[in-house]
Amino acid sequence: MFDHAAYDRLKARFARIATLSEAGAMLGWDAAALMPPGGAVARGDQLAVLAGVAHALVTAPEVAEDLDAAEVAAEGAGTAGDPWEAANLRLMRREHARATALPADLVEAEARANSACEKIWREARAAADFSMVAPSLKIVLGLVRERAAALSERLGLSPYDALMDLYQPGMLTADVQGLFDRYETFLATALPRVEERQRKSPPPIRLSGNFPADTQETLCRRLAERAGLDFNHARLDRSLHPFCSGTPSDVRITMRYDESDPVQAMMAVLHETGHALYERGLPDAWARQPVGAASGMAAHESQSLILEMQACRSDPFLGWLSTELVSVFNGAGPAWAPSNLARLWRRVERGFIRVDADEMTYPAHVIMRFRLEQAMVRGALSVDDLPGAWAEELNRLLGIVPPDDSRGCLQDIHWYEGMFGYFPAYTLGAMAAAQLMAAARAAVPELDRALAKGDLAPLTHWLHAHVHAHGSRLDFNELLTEATGRKLDPAAFEAHLTSRYLS
Amino acid sequence: MFDHAAYDRLKARFARIATLSEAGAMLGWDAAALMPPGGAVARGDQLAVLAGVAHALVTAPEVAEDLDAAEVAAEGAGTAGDPWEAANLRLMRREHARATALPADLVEAEARANSACEKIWREARAAADFSMVAPSLKIVLGLVRERAAALSERLGLSPYDALMDLYQPGMLTADVQGLFDRYETFLATALPRVEERQRKSPPPIRLSGNFPADTQETLCRRLAERAGLDFNHARLDRSLHPFCSGTPSDVRITMRYDESDPVQAMMAVLHETGHALYERGLPDAWARQPVGAASGMAAHESQSLILEMQACRSDPFLGWLSTELVSVFNGAGPAWAPSNLARLWRRVERGFIRVDADEMTYPAHVIMRFRLEQAMVRGALSVDDLPGAWAEELNRLLGIVPPDDSRGCLQDIHWYEGMFGYFPAYTLGAMAAAQLMAAARAAVPELDRALAKGDLAPLTHWLHAHVHAHGSRLDFNELLTEATGRKLDPAAFEAHLTSRYLS
Repeated sequence: MFDHAAYDRLKARFARIATLSEAGAMLGWDAAALMPPGGAVARGDQLAVLAGVAHALVTAPEVAEDLDAAEVAAEGAGTAGDPWEAANLRLMRREHARATALPADLVEAEARANSACEKIWREARAAADFSMVAPSLKIVLGLVRERAAALSERLGLSPYDALMDLYQPGMLTADVQGLFDRYETFLATALPRVEERQRKSPPPIRLSGNFPADTQETLCRRLAERAGLDFNHARLDRSLHPFCSGTPSDVRITMRYDESDPVQAMMAVLHETGHALYERGLPDAWARQPVGAASGMAAHESQSLILEMQACRSDPFLGWLSTELVSVFNGAGPAWAPSNLARLWRRVERGFIRVDADEMTYPAHVIMRFRLEQAMVRGALSVDDLPGAWAEELNRLLGIVPPDDSRGCLQDIHWYEGMFGYFPAYTLGAMAAAQLMAAARAAVPELDRALAKGDLAPLTHWLHAHVHAHGSRLDFNELLTEATGRKLDPAAFEAHLTSRYLS
Repeated sequence: MFDHAAYDRLKARFARIATLSEAGAMLGWDAAALMPPGGAVARGDQLAVLAGVAHALVTAPEVAEDLDAAEVAAEGAGTAGDPWEAANLRLMRREHARATALPADLVEAEARANSACEKIWREARAAADFSMVAPSLKIVLGLVRERAAALSERLGLSPYDALMDLYQPGMLTADVQGLFDRYETFLATALPRVEERQRKSPPPIRLSGNFPADTQETLCRRLAERAGLDFNHARLDRSLHPFCSGTPSDVRITMRYDESDPVQAMMAVLHETGHALYERGLPDAWARQPVGAASGMAAHESQSLILEMQACRSDPFLGWLSTELVSVFNGAGPAWAPSNLARLWRRVERGFIRVDADEMTYPAHVIMRFRLEQAMVRGALSVDDLPGAWAEELNRLLGIVPPDDSRGCLQDIHWYEGMFGYFPAYTLGAMAAAQLMAAARAAVPELDRALAKGDLAPLTHWLHAHVHAHGSRLDFNELLTEATGRKLDPAAFEAHLTSRYLS
């Protein structure tokens, strides 16, 4: 462990920055979950000022001096240095490099533009009219391209990689492209075979009836609690787009409920709970330090998907869940049998909506966005041409064309709040989830027996020890290597899909 | 109008400060209305860092230079100067003087201590056990006394006046003491006479039945809308202690509902709506500038009380409200007649709880807090002796003694979040409300006819023009002088009480 006044000053400064970012996260949650529409302009200003203040704290001249001094001290400590401290310092240096690459007025302009665009997106999506939001999206994209150019120069990455690096450090376009090309090939063969098998099986019976949002919410809350979420440190609310936000001691999950169909919400809450448990499980000792944060968004998505897709759509867990649902909704008849629930929750279908997609076609939605956003950042695809390009890509990958903008390029919030380079994390996370589940099963023999009793604790304890507790000390591939013995390898995901859908 | 780069820089800086303060207001609202208990520690840190950042912005060395330069330019402009700009600059100077009097670590320590104490207060109040929160309150009071001492020296006011000046600038202990002594004399004679009259009248019949919180909330929302609150810019939620917070474009009202009795909530929402309309009506052109803010808390309270006490407990409005209540709650029988509602809503009673008090005994609750907090700030009353002193004062003023701490010194949040010097504003506001109502009635002949139709617009339009739209350009007494022809004069309040309760 190296001890140095410069490093201590940096720790205090980064703690302040993280605390401001917590404030921003809470205000962002409020904007999505509660805020009256008339508050949007002022909220945009609030987030912009918070972002500007945090930016000023990272880029203050004394930070560069302290980083230099702390790095010299750390080198002096050599291999005897604490790996947490060393990683923390390395991550501080990276945040500083990223922040100093960006002028303060760009940071504030982006925060303001994103907030304004997101608000218009909500209206445009409701009206299924992309043209309403196109002018705002152009402004957002223009600023994103400025940011990408500035980061590219500083980090020595391509502009798109420089954006992606923010969400999943260490993953490059070339790596992702390789994984995605391989998946396209897999999907081209596997998807028709799965569809063929499904045609020969009994069709799933829809759960029919009225499923009041309040009842669904109560059940969702119970499922989250059962997965280990402590509502002394969490809330469950509603928003247009389900998400998990907040801070490690105050996690905010939002959901939406379809009163004619409870199927989506049950799994969505388990998904968001996976994210929440990661945040709650981060190392307390490193709270508000860069090394105490989650190790990127693909790692985050692996935690939501291992709960939602790997554990909770497994036969053992669905057996337990069937009993639970029957009791809550007074279900009766064959629709409520575990076998039918499995057919409902594991139905593979070419659809328009990413968040509704099954785990096999979901990567296709990601792959097309990965291509489109690369083209937009490069300047090869204009905002006005986005709906057409969207239709073309979806048609190429899944053979379908969206009937309107709300089921096309208006469905996701990401681009409209300036998030370009994020989408690949979903599929990298899905692949990692399969790999982690295989390792957890091998390490914890009672895992499936516990799932059959609705008990997720053996899995979540293993995840805590092998993923959550590491914070950002390890990057995505290092984390997978420590937990599973090898870096991200798509074989486990393909094996999982083959086993679940084709055997 | 003077034009000066220094003044423009100050305006930009104060706008950032106000924006950070909006963020803090929203996080404070969330803490009271929604936050899970486990989030309290982190929230305290967030508020402390926001306060620290804002403090650093006000106290930066260049602010003093810019203030000096801008004041020279303003003097050069002489009487031709814009009174808004002049007032804005004057208020900036005052904020700067206040802030530079306080060391940054005191500001952050107070924010942190107040947030921690407030959390414990919630538990102590629920357990009716003052000893649980006494250690935290000692820390809070210690910091308040440090603040008072520092401000006293800088502003040339007594320590308690320096605190009160934060909430109602320009009002001094000596002025308030005079008004309060006069009121004590009035009350000593009037209260027994009112009680005597009440004994001779039919007793009010309690509205009996079950009044679901959701139904009450719907009605409260409708009353707020009817008073002119636009829910495109507002929310109505629930918390332990009803309050109005947020920002001018996103006002947050919270309420609590007693399902066995809807009487409190109806008037409480009108009270909070009065606050909300003031915020919503502040001059847009001066948003986020010191001169664009409300003119202190007594002025604020005058706006809530003119709605709640003056307008909505008047005979004409209660006539209308009776019909409304009957329709919402399917009320039938004599309990729902306007005359009984008047007896319910205008019942004078010696009670333990300030927020439940009628308008005649309410000032007694304020007067005792005014005395106790002066003594605590002076060091003449220790925290441990507070419950005893509380009982003594309440007994002296109203002849009653609280049965436990939750109905005694634990009932109000103020001290537990470091607000000392605030309480007088309630009664100054009540006096101002009576004075403003008399002026409004004289100026707007149709006012009472409109109230009889549940129409508050003639009153709220007059208030907008004569109070809200002035921001802080005028201080409390200047505002009253412009609106009513004279500074605060308790005669209108006494006349109102005499007319309503003794004629």
